[in-house]
Formats: sequence, C-alpha cells, structure tokens
Amino acid sequence: MNQEISFIQREALKEKPATDSLGFGKYFTDYMLVMDYHSENGWYNPRITPYEALTLEPSAMVFHYGQAIFEGMKAYRTADGTAQLFRPEKNMKRLNDTCDRMCIPQIDEDFLLSAIKQLIFTEKDWIPQGEGTSLYIRPFIIATEAYLGVRPAKEYKLFVILSPSGAYYGSQLNPVKIYVEEQYVRAVIGGVGHVKNAGNYAASLKAQEKADRLGYAQILWLDAKENKYVEEVGSMNIFFKINGEVVTPKLTGSILPGVTRDSVIQLLKHWNIPVREERISIEEVFAAHERGELEEVFGAGTAAVISPVGELTWNDKTIVINDNQIGHLSQDIYDEMTGIQLGKKEDPFNWTVKVAQVEV
Amino acid sequence: MNQEISFIQREALKEKPATDSLGFGKYFTDYMLVMDYHSENGWYNPRITPYEALTLEPSAMVFHYGQAIFEGMKAYRTADGTAQLFRPEKNMKRLNDTCDRMCIPQIDEDFLLSAIKQLIFTEKDWIPQGEGTSLYIRPFIIATEAYLGVRPAKEYKLFVILSPSGAYYGSQLNPVKIYVEEQYVRAVIGGVGHVKNAGNYAASLKAQEKADRLGYAQILWLDAKENKYVEEVGSMNIFFKINGEVVTPKLTGSILPGVTRDSVIQLLKHWNIPVREERISIEEVFAAHERGELEEVFGAGTAAVISPVGELTWNDKTIVINDNQIGHLSQDIYDEMTGIQLGKKEDPFNWTVKVAQVEV
Ligand SMILES: Cc1ncc(COP(=O)(O)O)c(C=O)c1O
Ligand SMILES: Cc1ncc(COP(=O)(O)O)c(C=O)c1O
Repeated sequence: MNQEISFIQREALKEKPATDSLGFGKYFTDYMLVMDYHSENGWYNPRITPYEALTLEPSAMVFHYGQAIFEGMKAYRTADGTAQLFRPEKNMKRLNDTCDRMCIPQIDEDFLLSAIKQLIFTEKDWIPQGEGTSLYIRPFIIATEAYLGVRPAKEYKLFVILSPSGAYYGSQLNPVKIYVEEQYVRAVIGGVGHVKNAGNYAASLKAQEKADRLGYAQILWLDAKENKYVEEVGSMNIFFKINGEVVTPKLTGSILPGVTRDSVIQLLKHWNIPVREERISIEEVFAAHERGELEEVFGAGTAAVISPVGELTWNDKTIVINDNQIGHLSQDIYDEMTGIQLGKKEDPFNWTVKVAQVEV
Repeated sequence: MNQEISFIQREALKEKPATDSLGFGKYFTDYMLVMDYHSENGWYNPRITPYEALTLEPSAMVFHYGQAIFEGMKAYRTADGTAQLFRPEKNMKRLNDTCDRMCIPQIDEDFLLSAIKQLIFTEKDWIPQGEGTSLYIRPFIIATEAYLGVRPAKEYKLFVILSPSGAYYGSQLNPVKIYVEEQYVRAVIGGVGHVKNAGNYAASLKAQEKADRLGYAQILWLDAKENKYVEEVGSMNIFFKINGEVVTPKLTGSILPGVTRDSVIQLLKHWNIPVREERISIEEVFAAHERGELEEVFGAGTAAVISPVGELTWNDKTIVINDNQIGHLSQDIYDEMTGIQLGKKEDPFNWTVKVAQVEV
C-alpha cells in the first residue's frame, strides 16, 4: 500500500490539560488517523483529520455482532525531546492477527506504522512531560456496514486516536491484592482470547466487578477447561519467580501474547536468569509458597509495565508474597524497561523506534 | 418506570420496499425507539424518533470494550390485519439476563415491552403481507461513554429498530448440510455464550467462513471443554429425534436459551412426545445413526423457526438424515408454530400478544 495520507486541518487547537489531571483515556489530541475499507476498494482514503465524533447507522454491524478490535501502545518523550515508540511493529503484527481471527481484512503493517508515526509527529506537543507519563496510542477497527445478517462486514473504519496519560504509579510501584477467579473465565482454546477483540473486555467486566466488591485490585484468571492453570492477571500477563527461576504461562491459545511479556522474557534471558514458558497450576503456585520458594509475582503489560502482586487469594486461602514489598527482580525489570522506553538506558535489543519528520 | 414516551415526527415517510426484495436486515422503518442511560439518572428520555444515524465519540466504549448486546424477535401480520408478537416477555427477560452478565444496567421489562408495542403500532403499515414474512424487531444496547478505561460504562443508549423481512424459506423447508466444528468454539461455561452479547457473533464468524468454504450451510458447535457434547447449530438451538424420542442439549451455561427451543419443548410435551434436555455427545448422534435410530435433526430459532438438517459431517464421516427430506415431526412443529404465530391456529399456551392501540 502506497497511499498519500491527506491532512485536514482543524480551525483551532484544543487547550492541553495539566499533566497532573491526565489520568488515563479521558483526553484526546487534536487529530486522529482514519482509514476506510470497502470490499470493492480495499483500505482507502487514509487521512489525518480533526478528532471529532463519527456518524453511524443504527444498523452498523459493530453494534450488533461486535466486529471491533484494538491495539494499545505508547509514545514516550525522551530527554532530547524526541518521541519514541516501543516495539510498535509487534502491535501492528498483533493487530493483523486479531483481524484474521475476527474476519476483518488485513492492514499493510508498514504503511499503518508510518501513518501512526506521522500522526504522532503532528501531535508531538501532546506527549506529556514528566515521570511515568506518555501518549497512549489506540488503533482500532470497527465494522460500519449497515446490515443485520450475521457475516463478516464489507465495510470498516480504522482509527488511531491519541490520549495523553498520567503516571500509572506515584513515587513507587504498588503491590496489589489479587483474587483467583473460579466462576468466570476470560477465554478458552478455540475462542478469541489470544487476540484483542473488544468483546473479550466486555466479557471480563463481571468478574472485575466481583473482585472490586470483594476488595481486590484484579482477577487472576484460570484456564477455562480445567479451572486449574494460571492464564493472566486482569489485562496483563503474569510471571512467578520461584526459587530463583521465573515461570510464565505458555501461549496455549487462550492467552494474549503481550509485547511486555515477550520483552520481559528477552530481558531475563539477556540477564542469564532462568525463565520458562509453561503451564503452571494455581496449586503449584500455592505449593511453592508453602515451601517458601515463591519469591515474586508480577503482572506485565503496556499500561503498568510491571505490576507487583502483594497478596493472592484463592478460595479462602490468602498468601502474602515477599512481605507485600516490591521484589528486587520486579523493580529491576521495571527500571530497565522504562529506562529503555524513555531513552535513558541503552537499548541492546533495538526495541525503540524514533519518530522523526524524516520517517513520514 | 412510568415515563412518557415522546414522539418526534419525521418530515416525510420512506417508500416501502417491495415484499419480494426484502431479504433480511437491509431495510429499516421510519421510526425507532431510543432511550438513554446515565449512571446519575438511570434510564431516561424514551422517545420514538425518526430512524436516523447516530453520532458517537471515537472513544465511545462500545468500540473498544464491546459492551453491546441485543435481542431478536418478530411481529407478524395476522389474517384480521392486526399485529402479533410471539412470547415477547421472554425476550425482555433475556435482554435483562444479558445486561446482567455484561454489567449493563437493568431495564424495566414491562415498560420496554409496552414501548415496543407502541413503536410497532406506529409502524404497523411496515409489517409485510405474504407467506413467511414478518417485521423483525431488533432491540439493542450500546455503551456510549467516551472513556478508555476498562470498566462498565456509565452511559448507554438503548435502541429498538424494525426491519421488514422476507420469507426464510421458499415454498418448503430446506434441509441443510452441517459441519461439526472441532477447532473453533462458540462459548464455554463461565463465559458469555448463554447471553446475547455482540462479541459472541464476531467470534463465530471464522468458523462460519470455514464452513462456507467447505460447502456447508452451518456449523454444529461442540462444547469447549471436551470438544465432545453438541451445543448449538449456527445461531440456533438443536434437536435430535432418536428412536421416537426427542433430545436437545440441556442449558449448561454455554448455550443460548432460545425462545423457540423452549416453545418446541412445550409443544412436544403437549403432544405427548417424549422430550429430554440432556447433554448429548456427537458420538452418540453418530451411533444412533449407525443403529438406524436417528430419525430427524433440526435447528430451532426465531429466524427460521425450524431448520431441518439433511446431512451432518464430522471429520471425514458424513451421515444423511431421513434421506435428506424434511421429517414429519420437523414439519409438524413448523406448521404448528408458524400457525400460532400468524394467528391461524389456536394458541393453547397464550404465547401470542396482540399489538393494539389500547395497549399503549
Ligand atoms: C488481556 C490482556 N493481556 C495482556 C496484555 C498485555 O499486553 P501488552 O504487553 O502487549 O500490553 C493486555 C494489554 O494489552 C491485555 O489486554
Ligand atoms: C446463538 C443463538 N442460539 C440460539 C438462538 C435461538 O434463539 P431464539 O429461539 O430465541 O431466536 C439464537 C437466536 O436468537 C442465537 O443467536
């Protein structure tokens, strides 16, 4: 795909919100990237256009049969004032994997990435300054065809919207209380849990509501077939440090292949810390704790980077991990990853991608 | 809820399409019912308003986390010219069950049903004349709040749109070829398959695409845990007549409780035909065929009422059912159900509900 990206200028720019009021996903920048799909044209008319409401027919298929998918990534402001992305080609690839599973037409990954860079370059003044902040990037695709038959739509719209985001943590990482869910499941093999389909998140709300009610920060999901193997924590992948070795659930088909997960694994290998991807049962986790070998537990995802788990409750048993303190390894990974993302540390893996005028 | 339903008149009515061009889900009537929800007001501002496009922010939660649910029912034109609904209170109840699972606020079922009746009365001239036609009724709810955090939305919109629909069948019921799917699954216990969540349908498209490619009309879904027990056929519930007895999968939690399914069961009991709700494995179905006891197989749902299965393929084995002819029982149920729906047959169950001015 080698299309010209048109630019539609807005009349007046918005006022930028104060950094300490940002939170997550509330404010959006002046412009967005939009592209249309029609089965007769393929993807066409890529444009950077004012961020504004869209108009859809009540019969637009996205409202009825849920063909809606997304990605989540961040642009960081480096010390030298340039914008930087973290492994964005992985998000482009995963977007296409999601498209494939949800019968949405494939996107040209290189084209989309260069269009996103152009958008971010246009909006570079929106990347917040300040510890832990970033510009959140949300690509998404929805089925727009006006038709009520159950089949893949023939018309779609792709959007990329940008939202300046505040720091996830205050001055330090916060260990959280987690609850092992046995009634509700997130995903099953043969289903859609390995992709970023909108419906997965709607389906997860009920369990999150239950966790909130019971006073837990997040859910630890078990596999749907046996209710036995650990899958993910909230919307993050999960890692266990047991007796000096790190274990994370292997990608069996119901787990989202996180970019952060993959990066943590590479980092551990680079550091010569043993790391294994394998199925791990919740019994094993509790047994390791019993033996005094469960050293650290943490979630890994774009939003928090690393989220230490301080307490884990399974039925009526609660275990406290590492005295409810951030583990050394969790802290080291967090520091290294955020250091690389912000351009403060060396990037031996070539993970970061600069956003510069020349790219576009 | 005891709210006034306001009426916003349109300037000009649309031209009604010819009955033989109707198809399904392509045309919509002049008006729709809309109602808003805000966490501070509850549901408010019910209105019958011109059918027209809606405007949403790109960050509207429905596009990202898939809180979108629906119902499907029909209004029929009876011989005396009045409009009639079929067990609509079951759809209202199921809508609320779906709301509950998807963390969407409950609706007043009686209010919604009376509002739907009012809408249909307004649009009664849109109910097509002619064998097998009906006015399809599509209530749906979407999360409209502009926010990217993963949590239940605080703002929703409910719509009821109406679409005149042509006959599903031509002059007679058509037995179809069905394919037993073993790679993809529709739903799992602990998930959302027992409710009408939009995401379920997006998740099913890939398998349907595969069935199309292989030359089958629909998928027979197996359970996700063991890939063994029959669940549904396409978007219908399924029935087997084996040696004079009728079996349908019991509602274990991953099967949609169809209104048609429930009606078929009641009808069979009324006719003193043995009917059981139990788990039935695909092996059992094939074994029954082997013994010469598999007499009829049919799907049951609002769209087709009854859809006979003529051929069933599981891996590389294909069985032909009842010589690829419509079975007597399938035909009898179809005739009885459609007879009741159209007011041509007596309604001993009080299933039908007339739509008259006085109701509203
Ligand atoms: C369900 C789920 N699991 C895991 C992740 C972590 O993935 P990533 O590291 O790519 O952000 C996410 C977030 O994107 C997610 O939504
Ligand atoms: C997945 C699924 N199963 C079964 C049915 C049949 O339900 P009903 O008889 O209420 O139309 C439907 C259609 O609504 C459906 O979507």
